[in-house]
Amino acid sequence: MVGLIVPVSTDTLPNVSDHSLATPAAEPAIIDLLGALAYGELSAFDRLADDARMAPTLDGRAHMSAMAAIEMGHYSRLAERLEQLGVPPAVAMEPFVAALETYHSLTEPSTWLEGVVKAYVGDGMAADFYREVAEFVDESTRALIHEVLADAGRAEFAVREVRAGIAAQPAVAGRLALWGRRLVGEAISQTQHVLADRDALMLLMMHGTSGSSVELAGVAGLIERITARHEERMAALGLSH
Amino acid sequence: MVGLIVPVSTDTLPNVSDHSLATPAAEPAIIDLLGALAYGELSAFDRLADDARMAPTLDGRAHMSAMAAIEMGHYSRLAERLEQLGVPPAVAMEPFVAALETYHSLTEPSTWLEGVVKAYVGDGMAADFYREVAEFVDESTRALIHEVLADAGRAEFAVREVRAGIAAQPAVAGRLALWGRRLVGEAISQTQHVLADRDALMLLMMHGTSGSSVELAGVAGLIERITARHEERMAALGLSH
Repeated sequence: MVGLIVPVSTDTLPNVSDHSLATPAAEPAIIDLLGALAYGELSAFDRLADDARMAPTLDGRAHMSAMAAIEMGHYSRLAERLEQLGVPPAVAMEPFVAALETYHSLTEPSTWLEGVVKAYVGDGMAADFYREVAEFVDESTRALIHEVLADAGRAEFAVREVRAGIAAQPAVAGRLALWGRRLVGEAISQTQHVLADRDALMLLMMHGTSGSSVELAGVAGLIERITARHEERMAALGLSH
Repeated sequence: MVGLIVPVSTDTLPNVSDHSLATPAAEPAIIDLLGALAYGELSAFDRLADDARMAPTLDGRAHMSAMAAIEMGHYSRLAERLEQLGVPPAVAMEPFVAALETYHSLTEPSTWLEGVVKAYVGDGMAADFYREVAEFVDESTRALIHEVLADAGRAEFAVREVRAGIAAQPAVAGRLALWGRRLVGEAISQTQHVLADRDALMLLMMHGTSGSSVELAGVAGLIERITARHEERMAALGLSH
C-alpha cells in the first residue's frame, strides 16, 4: 500500500456540472481502488525486498524482508477479491503500473535509513489515503482495505532504526527530513496523474468527501488529516523541524 | 531452502579415526543445520524477489513474488526456533552467508525461465538434501524442517511456465538443460566448502548416513537418491536428455 496519495491541487477535478456526480460509487471505482491497492502491494513488496539488501545487519535485512512478505499476503487477499468480482488482477492493476513505478523510481532510497523512512512514512501516507477513501465504499470492501493496511509493527521498527541512526550520526537528520518531504511531493504528483486518468476513482472521492453536494471542503479536510498524520510520523522519527 | 546440497567427493570428509564420530548428533550440528536453512530461506527470498522482476506478465511476477514471501514465512519459523535454543539467528546464519551468496552470484538467472528452473530445480535439490539430513536429528527439529521445505505448488508453476516457454521457442530447451546441470554443479561445490568448515554438520551427516559404523556407503546412497530426484524434476520440465 504505497505511493498514491491525495492531490492538493484542483487541476484534475472533474467538471462539477457533470451529472454522474450525483450517482453513488459504482463498481468501476471499486475495481480501480482494489487494482491500485493490489499493484501498490506488489510494487511495495518489490521495493522493500530490494531495499532490504542495504541493511547493515542480517537482523535488519530479515526485518525488512518480512515486511515485504507481509505485503504479498495483502496482495493475495486483494487479488482474490478481484477474481471474485470477475476481474483478472493483472487487468485491474494495469492502469496503475506506470504511476507507481514512476513514484518508486523517483524515490529510490540511497541508504538503509532512507529505505526505512520510505517504508514507514511513504507507505503510511498512502495507507491514510486509502483508509480515507475506504469510508466511501461498501462495508465488505472497506473491511478488506482496513485489513491489508495493517502496518504490523512497522512504526516501532522505523522509529528504533532512525533514532539509532541519528544518535550515531546527527547529521543524517537534516537529510532524512528533506527525504520525507520529497516522498510526499512525489506521491502527490503521481496521485494527481492517476486521478486525472481515472474518472470513476475521482468521482468516488468527490462524492464521498462532499456528501451529496459537490464541494472542495471535503477534499480539503481529507488533505488536512493526511498531512497531520504525516507530520506525526516525521515527529515520531525525530525528523520534525 | 536453497543452494546447499551434498558433496560428491570425499576430499572434505573428516578423519575417520576421530573419536567424536561415535557420539550422536549434538547441539552444534542442529544449530548449524537451522542456521544454514534460515540463511537459505532469507537468500532464497532475496533472489526470488529479484528474479520476479524478469516475469513477462504481472501474473508471473505476482506468482514468483508470492513464492518469495513463503520463504520468509519459513525463515520466521526457523529464526523463532533458534531463539528458543538461545542462539541469535544472525549468529547461527553467519557461517553460511558467504557460501550461499557465492552460489547465488554464480547462478544468477539471465532470463525468466532460468529463474523459474532455478526456483524449482535448485531449491528442490537443496530441499532433498535437508530432508535427508533431517532424518538424523530429533523429532521436533525434523518436523520443523519438513514444514519449511514444503514446496507449495512450485512444481506445477515451473512445469507450466517452462513447458509453455519450450513450446513457444524449442531452442531454449537445450540451454535450460545446461542451466540445470550448472545449478547442480555450483550447489555441490558450495556445499563442499561449507562442510569442510563445519565439523559438527559433517559429523552429523557421516554418523547419520552410516549408522554406528563410519563408512561411505551411506553417503553414496544419499547422493544417489538426491540425483535421482533431480533427474525426475528435469524430466517433469521436459529437460531430460
